[in-house]
Amino acid sequence: MVVEEKTISSDRIYTGKVISVKVDTVEVENKGYQKREIVEHCGAVGIVAINEKNEVILIKQFRKPIEKVIWEIPAGKLEPGENPKECAIRELKEETGYEAQNLRLIHKFYTSAGFSNQKIYIYLATGLKPGENKLDDDESLEMYSISLEEAHSMIAKNEIEDAKTAIGILLAKELI
Amino acid sequence: MVVEEKTISSDRIYTGKVISVKVDTVEVENKGYQKREIVEHCGAVGIVAINEKNEVILIKQFRKPIEKVIWEIPAGKLEPGENPKECAIRELKEETGYEAQNLRLIHKFYTSAGFSNQKIYIYLATGLKPGENKLDDDESLEMYSISLEEAHSMIAKNEIEDAKTAIGILLAKELI
Repeated sequence: MVVEEKTISSDRIYTGKVISVKVDTVEVENKGYQKREIVEHCGAVGIVAINEKNEVILIKQFRKPIEKVIWEIPAGKLEPGENPKECAIRELKEETGYEAQNLRLIHKFYTSAGFSNQKIYIYLATGLKPGENKLDDDESLEMYSISLEEAHSMIAKNEIEDAKTAIGILLAKELI
Repeated sequence: MVVEEKTISSDRIYTGKVISVKVDTVEVENKGYQKREIVEHCGAVGIVAINEKNEVILIKQFRKPIEKVIWEIPAGKLEPGENPKECAIRELKEETGYEAQNLRLIHKFYTSAGFSNQKIYIYLATGLKPGENKLDDDESLEMYSISLEEAHSMIAKNEIEDAKTAIGILLAKELI
């Protein structure tokens, strides 16, 4: 049986720019008290942007937590109070310069529900119009257009190893 | 261009049971110093277990960080020094009672490389033999067998909203 957990107390550990951390003490029916370490995140969007040649826009970006450059779809964090669709339009423009005539939510998911509330909204963008990008001060990336077939095989070969990118491409391939 | 980031200093914020948190100060070429908030995690496995009827074993579990019961494939954290395949065998047995004759790594990915190093290894398990499960003290879950087709449509309908579960089912459907 699935038992919900009642919060007994909550200790704030850290309040940062991107994440906050708290440790909750919860009561689990018949099992006493347990600690739950929780990372709070404002949420994010990822955009599977497909051009007129059926290529997906991918970026290569260094990620400090894994000390590695990885392939990703364009993505970014929600600003406070921002609608996910507006965020997708903004991030696609900022990171790639593209504006999309059609933008459709194809999935939303939790990245790691065991320790975080982070939720990512995945949009499929088509009807792309190129323009100038405008990166944040602390962003640096390379942009590529790769056929959906090739991107799909990069997942199978584990060259793509980012959750939102894998989910976005696997779902887009069924829809395009 | 992709610029890597050199660590100047690292402040330990929290060391917990499941996660640890640090804030690194990094030097970004031509862009000065930046802070990077990083959640360290020991890694985890998820198992797409398929029975002789081509059904996938799914569990329903309450997740405190999102205050919600969600659908997931069986999964669990790596013990210190544990091989991911051994972890997959152990977690499948503990959570579902099943032992698998065949266990194959089909993907590994980062859940949220922007703020965490958490990596999840996804195994495809076939040739299932039922047995008794043995949950951890703080675990409570319900187990279901659902056809791969139905599980796939649960992703499209967003009833499945867990990253490892979506990736595992989408990839398994191409392999089974």
